[in-house]
Amino acid sequence: MRIALGVSYLGTAYHGWQSQLDGLTVQDKLEFALNRFADTKPQLTPNRRIGTLCAGRTDAGVHAHMQVVHFDTDVERSEAAWVRGVNAYLPKDIAVQWAKEVPCSFHCRASAVTRSYAYALLESAVRPSLDSRRVGWVFRPLDRTAMQAAASFLVGEHDFTSFRAAQCQALTPIKDLHRIDIVSQGEPMHRYWRFEFEGNAFLHHMIRNIMGCLVTIGQGMKPPEWMKEVLDAKSRKMAAPTFSPDGLYFLGPTYGAEWDIPKTPLFAYGLI
Amino acid sequence: MRIALGVSYLGTAYHGWQSQLDGLTVQDKLEFALNRFADTKPQLTPNRRIGTLCAGRTDAGVHAHMQVVHFDTDVERSEAAWVRGVNAYLPKDIAVQWAKEVPCSFHCRASAVTRSYAYALLESAVRPSLDSRRVGWVFRPLDRTAMQAAASFLVGEHDFTSFRAAQCQALTPIKDLHRIDIVSQGEPMHRYWRFEFEGNAFLHHMIRNIMGCLVTIGQGMKPPEWMKEVLDAKSRKMAAPTFSPDGLYFLGPTYGAEWDIPKTPLFAYGLI
Repeated sequence: MRIALGVSYLGTAYHGWQSQLDGLTVQDKLEFALNRFADTKPQLTPNRRIGTLCAGRTDAGVHAHMQVVHFDTDVERSEAAWVRGVNAYLPKDIAVQWAKEVPCSFHCRASAVTRSYAYALLESAVRPSLDSRRVGWVFRPLDRTAMQAAASFLVGEHDFTSFRAAQCQALTPIKDLHRIDIVSQGEPMHRYWRFEFEGNAFLHHMIRNIMGCLVTIGQGMKPPEWMKEVLDAKSRKMAAPTFSPDGLYFLGPTYGAEWDIPKTPLFAYGLI
Repeated sequence: MRIALGVSYLGTAYHGWQSQLDGLTVQDKLEFALNRFADTKPQLTPNRRIGTLCAGRTDAGVHAHMQVVHFDTDVERSEAAWVRGVNAYLPKDIAVQWAKEVPCSFHCRASAVTRSYAYALLESAVRPSLDSRRVGWVFRPLDRTAMQAAASFLVGEHDFTSFRAAQCQALTPIKDLHRIDIVSQGEPMHRYWRFEFEGNAFLHHMIRNIMGCLVTIGQGMKPPEWMKEVLDAKSRKMAAPTFSPDGLYFLGPTYGAEWDIPKTPLFAYGLI
């Protein structure tokens, strides 16, 4: 049978999602916990070992509110037991939020219709402290109008080659970016910004490369129209440097209603 | 001359505010940075070494949005230089937000008129992950009406002996608690609570002990009137166990307007 999981994590301590030999990735920690809980004893029954796929790989230092994962297993446990039992073997900064048995035609990556990300950014003369590694940082004021104008050039279906990392494995650089919402809270030089991105899919480093350009424009170093020049150039050399992973959060994928995948209401951390 | 500083920190990695031999406290990190920046070479000129006092000592694992500190020194630096220079020697999770020269009659602790704290609490079947060590956690639903009724018994001037840690060094257990505000965000079993406390001063562990009682009442294990029984008993044995430090934030002291101490607008983290 196939099981889907919703998983949240703080990426700071991990070398990204994707399994590595050092074992210090979110996938490694999750698969360790799944196999411990399912008691699949990989050394005895390697073919029963549980392996996972995810909806959106995250880089080192990037966080996730709702990564969606699936795996196939013949180990029978209740949905509630998959949540509680696996969480008992996971580190404090990773947690399974829900588990659901899904048809084998469901695929966490291929079935995803949209994906959303948020970027949290501190604008302040003083670097982050309480939320170090959880927000990006700029120490010059940002111009909202300029950034919104720049973002509008990116919305729609485009060839995003200019914002694509060299090591990107996507089949095509053409993606449909549905929206970029920009909000802030606080006073100039003493505020937080939140950039929310939704699209059908994203290239490797695409959001961090767009963020680098948005911040360049927001600080007045380039005009908003420069974003269109970068996009049209279809060359990574044109864009600003890749922005820090610290403030990037994978908010999660969405799926067609037929799969009935739980929509974890995102915790608005907003109380402190 | 006397300098006051506003300092923010995430307490997770530290053994509280107060200096200890192991050096793993916020005060130790701050004094190390101050003396490095002021180049006071303690081994050569021990009488010039900068030592600090704070407005409100925090326990191990407790955070601060605006701890206020003062120290005396004959080292002359601009206010902006104290901020930038000291931050260069501080760890990522501690930052000086502002520095201000104050009259020697100003005392960060004695001059403080009120102090405020917030407690952030996750109500969910699943433990915290993204905000592990930054919020407390309950896995049973909380009743707002019962907690508000219980809190109302504590507001005003009372003998808070029942909520006082054995090692508390305060001169008197009589404190004036001005308000306890309780707000939440989200759905039952999937929400965050924020408890905000303001008073003239607080005893050691007073807020964590009150939180233990509020949660006991919120979960229906005791009626709201039990809070008054605990208060009236003037005995630590009556109260619930001391609640976790994870979700406790020192929001900062306030001072009379004559001191003109900067009010750091609290960053509402609320965007993620």
